[in-house]
Amino acid sequence: MKRAMYFLDQKDMPTKWYNVLADMPEPMPPYFHPGTKKPLGPEDLAPLFPMELIKQEVSTERWIEIPEEVQDVYRTYRPTVLHRAYRLEKALDTPAKIFYKYEGTSQAGSHKPNTAIPQAYYNKKEGIKRIATETGAGQWGSALAMGCAFFGIELKVYMVRISYDQKPYRRILMETWGARCIPSPSKDTKAGRDMLEKWPDCPGSLGLAISEAVEDAMTRDDTHYSLGSVLNHVLLHQTIIGEETRKQMEMADAYPDIIVGCVGGGSNFAGQFLPWIRDKFSGKKKDLRIVCVEPESCPTMTRGVYAYDFGDTAGMAPIAKMHTLGHSFVPAPIHAGGLRYHGMAPIISKLYDLGLIDAVAVHQTAIFEAGVKFARTEGIIAGPEPCHALKVAIDEALKCKESGEAKTILIALSGHGHFDLSAYDAYLSGKLQDFALPDKEIKKALTELPEIPEG
Amino acid sequence: MKRAMYFLDQKDMPTKWYNVLADMPEPMPPYFHPGTKKPLGPEDLAPLFPMELIKQEVSTERWIEIPEEVQDVYRTYRPTVLHRAYRLEKALDTPAKIFYKYEGTSQAGSHKPNTAIPQAYYNKKEGIKRIATETGAGQWGSALAMGCAFFGIELKVYMVRISYDQKPYRRILMETWGARCIPSPSKDTKAGRDMLEKWPDCPGSLGLAISEAVEDAMTRDDTHYSLGSVLNHVLLHQTIIGEETRKQMEMADAYPDIIVGCVGGGSNFAGQFLPWIRDKFSGKKKDLRIVCVEPESCPTMTRGVYAYDFGDTAGMAPIAKMHTLGHSFVPAPIHAGGLRYHGMAPIISKLYDLGLIDAVAVHQTAIFEAGVKFARTEGIIAGPEPCHALKVAIDEALKCKESGEAKTILIALSGHGHFDLSAYDAYLSGKLQDFALPDKEIKKALTELPEIPEG
Repeated sequence: MKRAMYFLDQKDMPTKWYNVLADMPEPMPPYFHPGTKKPLGPEDLAPLFPMELIKQEVSTERWIEIPEEVQDVYRTYRPTVLHRAYRLEKALDTPAKIFYKYEGTSQAGSHKPNTAIPQAYYNKKEGIKRIATETGAGQWGSALAMGCAFFGIELKVYMVRISYDQKPYRRILMETWGARCIPSPSKDTKAGRDMLEKWPDCPGSLGLAISEAVEDAMTRDDTHYSLGSVLNHVLLHQTIIGEETRKQMEMADAYPDIIVGCVGGGSNFAGQFLPWIRDKFSGKKKDLRIVCVEPESCPTMTRGVYAYDFGDTAGMAPIAKMHTLGHSFVPAPIHAGGLRYHGMAPIISKLYDLGLIDAVAVHQTAIFEAGVKFARTEGIIAGPEPCHALKVAIDEALKCKESGEAKTILIALSGHGHFDLSAYDAYLSGKLQDFALPDKEIKKALTELPEIPEG
Repeated sequence: MKRAMYFLDQKDMPTKWYNVLADMPEPMPPYFHPGTKKPLGPEDLAPLFPMELIKQEVSTERWIEIPEEVQDVYRTYRPTVLHRAYRLEKALDTPAKIFYKYEGTSQAGSHKPNTAIPQAYYNKKEGIKRIATETGAGQWGSALAMGCAFFGIELKVYMVRISYDQKPYRRILMETWGARCIPSPSKDTKAGRDMLEKWPDCPGSLGLAISEAVEDAMTRDDTHYSLGSVLNHVLLHQTIIGEETRKQMEMADAYPDIIVGCVGGGSNFAGQFLPWIRDKFSGKKKDLRIVCVEPESCPTMTRGVYAYDFGDTAGMAPIAKMHTLGHSFVPAPIHAGGLRYHGMAPIISKLYDLGLIDAVAVHQTAIFEAGVKFARTEGIIAGPEPCHALKVAIDEALKCKESGEAKTILIALSGHGHFDLSAYDAYLSGKLQDFALPDKEIKKALTELPEIPEG
């Protein structure tokens, strides 16, 4: 019998998150205040986040206990399954061993609940009654809606208007879990009203939606703000993925030579690879390859710079040192909405700058070709984001076919594509477009980086 | 630690389907030919089905080996998980223990692949190159598309035109898995052309789509037909669900007092309860309650008759003795498309006629109320069909709260509702409609039952 799925019993579910800040070869650069340009302190973040998360953001403790109440909720969908892709291997006729850890079986269909749940929990514990957040295509908003439903917190989601109009399904998800979701720009904030006055038909943007959510949280005592990627504490919560995978790979008597994942803000892939990179730090597995895959339309790592930049487009969020295309960069409208972010998680940026991880950029036609091959062999319809990982994993497996090497490839498969079928339709009907990105467009956005006196 | 998910290792996955025909208290009534009205023989079915399935349809062997090749494919998504619904129990404040076996993690999102895969396999083994089938909302068509992709069989799906136009997502799923899906009525068959000539804008019906698929299969030597519910061999394949659940309930040190599931054709719920009903036959658990839940708009069991009737609306499919509302009965357009079938699986009908199982009918507003409660406690957005089971399971748990009994309730949760969110939207916005069904409508359809000389 060939075991194609590795289940981990709930009694063996990891009870601690792994904090890579304990093991980073160099300390992380500090955050700066977007207004004052001074180093950011806990007091700057207190109106937005619960103190426990602010502490986690800078903690250098190696292991952080997952609260019992969070473990309880994790156990409604975790541990997720590690799959061996026998059928894909056979179709590729490769000696490579391909594994994928699949987060699409969470109720929200992606890895996002791994951080939505603890964020809701810590807010609840601090007496917060209400959270405001923004969402683009709706993956984060829906995961947080579920997290808030579980802990009895009211949630208001500012959803970019064009997505709100074009993608009603994720809005309905949020409402089913009890959240209120309104199109941004809205009349509920000053930022929204100002924009609507200037441009009544404004389609919205993630940057503006962030501004609205932050303003909402800043102006109400009972309300906090919540972010679904990029920040250290978000990556920390996602390490449950890799910690589980380590145990499951051991069950499979396997160890990865290559780990592949897609990166937007970076939290999904960091959640998988951070628990492995410590073996690279320690020298246990020096030649471990970690490959970040990003869209050619938003090549933060492969074509961006490592510099201080605002976390949001509007220049209201903290300034972080990260790989960035410039906060004013607007990526082409590719279907992988979750990868359309101008920056990259500071932790991933630092590791990339240190040469410890690789990055590659791919076009969307190629990623859907990989997605369809995956669907026809393994069955799963992956989201456009993880299709980026599939594309590069398949390329690596085909290299193994040529070289005859039986490498072990581990894929971070972050979610399903059930709400992205129109993208598959576009691909199958030959209507999918690739977007060239001239150097001058990147250069232009990079002229607008903030200046940090201390940076 | 409260274990909320029970995983079954793949080495413990059942290797045999359970055939209830070996243990039925009375023999099953035979099928009759729709044209000649004579008992149906294997030769009548040979142009449509592979011989192995025709044998399974009438076999009285208690255990039927699952072919290795089918087990291999099952292992891409099975065993599925048994959940303990701690959070729902707490929200209901009930002493009842609630479990649910969830089939929504299959790649197609429902239990349908459990039969699609062996059907594709047996056809492949008999040298069949191509299959034709029909689909209403698209659940069966998409599952069979995946099954056919896995075994390299060409598939053509005749999809009821109104669903084809209104629900493009399931069509895209089928195409992603490589099937061809066209709206019915089509110009590709005589049945379709005749209809289009009379009525060019005909929205189609499941009956007509069946006629087109059957004609397609009858007129091509390389092509067979495939059906996704009702028939004995389909129920047989689904028993993998209940066989797994038995092992998982043992892991949980629990045994159900009540098993609840929704019924359309009946295959999903039969797949769960048939492996348990043998304990009722044998006297080991005489008081086991098995509750079939159907829509008030299509109350086949609670308001239909046990009589011979055509399997399809057009009167071209075999005649079976079953609970039926009459083959010309047209259910109201409720959102649970998978439950809009005029008849019921002959095995379920027989067991109900013998008084061994119960049935209850519910309205759609009530089932979405239950679905939203489930989403906000357990997280999963269930399909409208299994929301029927949730409604009755919650009612039973609330009865336990009143009586103080700690009954064990097992729910057959057949699939997710990711493609049914517009129905949740209608419920949440107060636009959902319940449909009264006057007796005279049922009476009218029942006047058209076929006469069987031997019946």
